[in-house]
Amino acid sequence: MTPEQFRTEGRKLIDWIAAYYEQVEKFPVLSQVKPGEIFNALPEVPPVSGESFDHMMEDVDRLILPGITHWQSPNFYAYFPANASFPAILGDLLSSGLGVQGMLWTTSPSATELETRVMEWLAGMLGLPPCFSYLADGGGVIQDTASSSALAAVIAARERITGMRSNQEGITGRLTAYVSTQTHSSVEKAIKIAGIGRANLRIIGTDPLYAMLPEKLEEKIEADRAAGFTPFFVCATIGTTSSNGMDPIRRIGEICKKENLWLHVDGAMSGAALLCPEFRHFSDGLELADSFCFNPHKWLFTNFDCDCFWVADRRHLTNTFSILPEYLRNQASESGEVFDYRDWHIQLGRRFRSLKLWFVIRHYGEEGLRNLIRYHVRMAGEFASWIRESEDFELVTEPPLNLVCFRYRGTDEENLALMDGINRGGEIYFTHTRLGGKVVLRFCIAQTHTEERHVIRAWEIIKSAAAQLKTE
Amino acid sequence: MTPEQFRTEGRKLIDWIAAYYEQVEKFPVLSQVKPGEIFNALPEVPPVSGESFDHMMEDVDRLILPGITHWQSPNFYAYFPANASFPAILGDLLSSGLGVQGMLWTTSPSATELETRVMEWLAGMLGLPPCFSYLADGGGVIQDTASSSALAAVIAARERITGMRSNQEGITGRLTAYVSTQTHSSVEKAIKIAGIGRANLRIIGTDPLYAMLPEKLEEKIEADRAAGFTPFFVCATIGTTSSNGMDPIRRIGEICKKENLWLHVDGAMSGAALLCPEFRHFSDGLELADSFCFNPHKWLFTNFDCDCFWVADRRHLTNTFSILPEYLRNQASESGEVFDYRDWHIQLGRRFRSLKLWFVIRHYGEEGLRNLIRYHVRMAGEFASWIRESEDFELVTEPPLNLVCFRYRGTDEENLALMDGINRGGEIYFTHTRLGGKVVLRFCIAQTHTEERHVIRAWEIIKSAAAQLKTE
Repeated sequence: MTPEQFRTEGRKLIDWIAAYYEQVEKFPVLSQVKPGEIFNALPEVPPVSGESFDHMMEDVDRLILPGITHWQSPNFYAYFPANASFPAILGDLLSSGLGVQGMLWTTSPSATELETRVMEWLAGMLGLPPCFSYLADGGGVIQDTASSSALAAVIAARERITGMRSNQEGITGRLTAYVSTQTHSSVEKAIKIAGIGRANLRIIGTDPLYAMLPEKLEEKIEADRAAGFTPFFVCATIGTTSSNGMDPIRRIGEICKKENLWLHVDGAMSGAALLCPEFRHFSDGLELADSFCFNPHKWLFTNFDCDCFWVADRRHLTNTFSILPEYLRNQASESGEVFDYRDWHIQLGRRFRSLKLWFVIRHYGEEGLRNLIRYHVRMAGEFASWIRESEDFELVTEPPLNLVCFRYRGTDEENLALMDGINRGGEIYFTHTRLGGKVVLRFCIAQTHTEERHVIRAWEIIKSAAAQLKTE
Repeated sequence: MTPEQFRTEGRKLIDWIAAYYEQVEKFPVLSQVKPGEIFNALPEVPPVSGESFDHMMEDVDRLILPGITHWQSPNFYAYFPANASFPAILGDLLSSGLGVQGMLWTTSPSATELETRVMEWLAGMLGLPPCFSYLADGGGVIQDTASSSALAAVIAARERITGMRSNQEGITGRLTAYVSTQTHSSVEKAIKIAGIGRANLRIIGTDPLYAMLPEKLEEKIEADRAAGFTPFFVCATIGTTSSNGMDPIRRIGEICKKENLWLHVDGAMSGAALLCPEFRHFSDGLELADSFCFNPHKWLFTNFDCDCFWVADRRHLTNTFSILPEYLRNQASESGEVFDYRDWHIQLGRRFRSLKLWFVIRHYGEEGLRNLIRYHVRMAGEFASWIRESEDFELVTEPPLNLVCFRYRGTDEENLALMDGINRGGEIYFTHTRLGGKVVLRFCIAQTHTEERHVIRAWEIIKSAAAQLKTE
């Protein structure tokens, strides 16, 4: 393909994407295909000779689109969002076009230095404590997902508690880590990967708002110490996945400082709300944390993957992850004047991900981003008020931000049937969880293009499905 | 940004990228900026209000481009390549545009099923043994990097050797792993992360062609058993990073089968050569391996990130990585009829990465891809013949494929000075390593757009730099 052909095909694809967004709210949000349908429709063997781009795009329309669950539909309310935006798509395209590696400073200085700058911007925008700035001993780095950030935090904490011996000698002690019943499953996965063992992960209970009980944490740490364990790591959450619970960071942080435990704070979705000063009470005490992450690819209109991870002492990362084979040695690294971000995470290779974030921040501006976050929270508040006034439904928690947890006043089976029926209908898509042993419906308002009219329509669909369920 | 504005700005960006590729060979390959130059040129605070896209692109030209090391230049011969291509950029753009999550089958069936299909295609194209097919007990999955594949293999091996106890109980035994002096540093990193400990990683010596010595491996395993260790993991490489060494997979595989060790085979760059039947002797014995990976983002013209990872028994991955919180439960997963790829790796979220690979394979066709690989190998052979005939240089190894390791007949300092001088000149970029205690220059021919004229010119530059060095 010549640059000239790329111009032609690229423009067609840009038009295709624009048209996709013009139509996306008309597609069934949840794909309706059966297992194997797409796989079996694809040829069993690859083509021997090259095919035309038009032919490939016909197959995208014919074969791929029916198997898409439309995360970019304004009618998507499931899980946590993975929202894109036009400026992010363009930033990502620029990154693909440049095709550079940012593993070392020298392999593309712009990739490292724009990332440092954008992470400093974001730290300011979220009102993070100064300890996370590169100007202090901290610093930020873009990871792929919050799972990788959790793993990086666990490994760095493991090295710190063992006096830098766990990388060298392996796990020898009896280390224990602490999460709440509501913490994301990625922390359990990280604890397993790190060789700590699931049996050494303590699950702390929560209050009625699904926030970790610090006194239970403290008790458990003491009990573990008495039993000969070495407590080393706590994960607290700003906005848990199931319930949008807000852990008391300050109280937990005080315990961690006193007990010398690494505190990682996971704000995967809800961290984006810290853009708005009125929501910063959720991060009160964050200066006591050792690491913090949130995902612009969830609620900050930046294409997946983009998880922003800060540490209060970057040496813990570089001491943990740095390996310098001869083939990567270079003068800039040895000068000590630069960051080599491959020493801040698991992977070696790294994409120029800060471009899309830079484009998003500059396109919307700080105010524009704040306004969108506030709009989503306001709509969630309205949705919650409709639930509160309804006879058929009940709120399970008062939504602190943009996730509404509610139930149809009926059995678990009825709740699941209601949800599955609506999702099969295709007009909207939302998902469930289980809280206090009961099935709970989750309605998360965070999609880039969701407007009030969509939420109003969604509530009509849910209400009428409930009405129908009652007559059956 | 409306879809209409996206059309306008998107077309401009497509044109920008086309123009970039038209000019890229004229840019200094290695960025010439100083540490801090880009960072300090960027505003200290983000904009309060949104800015125009034109303004952002002006800054890309003015601030970002000077700090780019041009991995997509045909004059890039450094490290291993991270080559892009126009169809890959378009596939990646489509993935950004759709913005779907492929973590579960149900979150976008096309993302899972196209990935399975493309991985089956590739297994056939590379002549992988049938055990790696989903039709047997195996299967393939796209990971971000070979580092993540190595980590996944280590963790799965750790679970297998401990009878599925290491995830639950943590590391308790004295496990030992085996690599050669030439194995990529990512395996050492994985061993540390997994809690095995660097002290339990054995480094096996190599023959003069930098291939692992199987008899030394066998001896070390026996010695470790005698000392009360439990050997569990070997990484063999098809094309080591420093030296393009080819480990004897069959002999190593036989030892691993006999001794019940997990064999992971890393073909990060050179695995792509298996497309050509004449290079498949390098993978002889691969049916004895438990896992294999190679990176289309290195030498298969597919944008980063794209590492293809196969296992011979997929249950080892799913048993190792599966965690099913309530909020991810769904009917398709529970039917057992589908793959949920998030159970095949570290991360939960996952991008629709098979699109770009699908576009690349269909655009070039099998024959087109083979021809490019052969062209690169032929050029490397020519470059090596020039070295062989030269008085000033010597070959360090006979290049098996596309990486030429050579030396200026002089001191280490002279070799580094020669290389640094040429790289500062900006016309070409290549890097060094150390073999047998000596500095060795690496010249890797694998960039999508490298033609014979570029390699001829590169040799002229290197020759004349050497001539100049002699007169100094």
